[in-house]
Amino acid sequence: MAETNRVWLLAQRPDGRPDMDCFEFAERQRPVPGDGEVLVRTLYMSVDPYMRGRMRDAESYAEPWTVGEPMQAGVVGEIVASNHHAWEEGDVVNGNLRWADYAIAKGHELVGVNPDLAPVSTALGVLGMPARTAYFGLLDVGDPKPGDTVVVSGAAGAVGSVVGQIARHAGCRVVGVAGSEEKISWLTDELGFDAAINYKDDDVRARVREACPDGVDVYFDNVGGPVTDAVMDNLSVRARVVICGQISLYNAQERPTGPRHFGTLIQKRARVEGILVRDYEDRYEEANERLARWVNDGTVQYRETVTDGLERAPEAFLGLFDGENIGKQLVQVAEYGDEE
Amino acid sequence: MAETNRVWLLAQRPDGRPDMDCFEFAERQRPVPGDGEVLVRTLYMSVDPYMRGRMRDAESYAEPWTVGEPMQAGVVGEIVASNHHAWEEGDVVNGNLRWADYAIAKGHELVGVNPDLAPVSTALGVLGMPARTAYFGLLDVGDPKPGDTVVVSGAAGAVGSVVGQIARHAGCRVVGVAGSEEKISWLTDELGFDAAINYKDDDVRARVREACPDGVDVYFDNVGGPVTDAVMDNLSVRARVVICGQISLYNAQERPTGPRHFGTLIQKRARVEGILVRDYEDRYEEANERLARWVNDGTVQYRETVTDGLERAPEAFLGLFDGENIGKQLVQVAEYGDEE
Repeated sequence: MAETNRVWLLAQRPDGRPDMDCFEFAERQRPVPGDGEVLVRTLYMSVDPYMRGRMRDAESYAEPWTVGEPMQAGVVGEIVASNHHAWEEGDVVNGNLRWADYAIAKGHELVGVNPDLAPVSTALGVLGMPARTAYFGLLDVGDPKPGDTVVVSGAAGAVGSVVGQIARHAGCRVVGVAGSEEKISWLTDELGFDAAINYKDDDVRARVREACPDGVDVYFDNVGGPVTDAVMDNLSVRARVVICGQISLYNAQERPTGPRHFGTLIQKRARVEGILVRDYEDRYEEANERLARWVNDGTVQYRETVTDGLERAPEAFLGLFDGENIGKQLVQVAEYGDEE
Repeated sequence: MAETNRVWLLAQRPDGRPDMDCFEFAERQRPVPGDGEVLVRTLYMSVDPYMRGRMRDAESYAEPWTVGEPMQAGVVGEIVASNHHAWEEGDVVNGNLRWADYAIAKGHELVGVNPDLAPVSTALGVLGMPARTAYFGLLDVGDPKPGDTVVVSGAAGAVGSVVGQIARHAGCRVVGVAGSEEKISWLTDELGFDAAINYKDDDVRARVREACPDGVDVYFDNVGGPVTDAVMDNLSVRARVVICGQISLYNAQERPTGPRHFGTLIQKRARVEGILVRDYEDRYEEANERLARWVNDGTVQYRETVTDGLERAPEAFLGLFDGENIGKQLVQVAEYGDEE
């Protein structure tokens, strides 16, 4: 086992779009777990759009990251040393750890991952936080009924692709909005979306109107901005809009402006609601069970975009803002089962 | 009874703020009721912000008015001729009629008004549509809990003043936003609002923050625009925003733009929902009974701004956009009980 630990630090807060100056790759001593703690070797780390919010020094639902300190990430890793009764060497776990080769965790903050059930990386994607976000956001807030038309933006992402497939399973017509022909093909040819719109090439407003002649009953929004404006102008009466992410706006240097939509909400008696998955923590078990079943029986398919090597983690993160990933964007840091 | 009937017609659709060119005062023959119809003499007619929407030629929740045709209004009037079994001469009724001295109505489209219970004008205000809007919008959509902080814009209007008083009755801290010192005094000195903000003089954002140190749990919005922006930036977690009106935007010639608020909804897991009172038609009885009790026992106080004479109806309507009214804006067309 290596004595050193490579760690990504937040070098400075971004102003607008983050670049490599925001990240510093440091070499530290491999940490030693104390009482009740374990040492986790990172196998996969997740990069997610929400991390852009953590880089900002502003009040939000979570503390901002500290400049000069390691950045945090959802991690799937292997226990390599344990001072906690629940874990032993070789166990695979999931937790909120670090952009690093190794991290210390308190034993009770980790969740076990069964490597026999599915590839361990899925604990960060289709069996993890993004899929639970899709599950609760769509079903609890979006409240889809069979026959409803559901539009999802960021449809080929880790959350959006699951939203669309659950909506199909719930008997809805599903229209996805994504940013490349490869994504569009995946959505319509493989995932069974009824239609998909390429926001980079198509007239989104016209295509939404065409694909949703009776209006949009549920809109699950991961991106915000002009795509969302186009959908908001095509809501049906009593539409439900789930705001999960606004990735197109996260790098704005000025406060983003756009058309005001509240008048539409009166005309359509529509509802817009923000969602944060951790508010559903006491129901994770429910989501986990269903998602595992759906992945197992093929109801929910998935793709992962895996960037190889911890040194490329910032690049993987920055790629999210260009929509470079299809499905869940991961960074592979080490190979599961590798001897060190 | 006069043989003529003065009627306001929609002369042309406004572009931006309506002016007198939009209205034509015509003299017609007094109409004669057919089978199942009655002739109603207007006592009071209501002017309301929503009418601006009817002047527009655009899809909405109701048909636009037709150019060259009489404009419609909520009316309290007296039956002066009846061919319908339910009504006889002298009955006071409430219905959606016209900007006119007289109008024909089908008997089943009218609701009786008991002149012994309250001044008949209240059927258009504190015992009518605006108060029911306040009732359902606040209680059903806003879902206030005792101890919540409720902010209402257009707080001295027909809807807002009732919202604030019901919220107080529900055990909430109530902050109103209005546009004159006279209104502010009415809200705080007479209606028991905990605070009131004059959006014309005050720094609304700073005053909202000061008056709502724990954030805004419920925002009932009648106005939209910058006032709403200031409140949206001070929501508490799980806040409910009720969109009832957007009067500050109704006369915009270009589509109004402003700061995007959907990101805030994620951070606060807040909900924004539009309301239209007629969706609650099957529960009007419930609202009517409670409002009558509350007006009777002083829980809900009210004021009316009465403009005298049908000829001044456009002026009364246009005054809404300058916030000239305190409480319900009415036009008195004839005196109740007057012999003609």
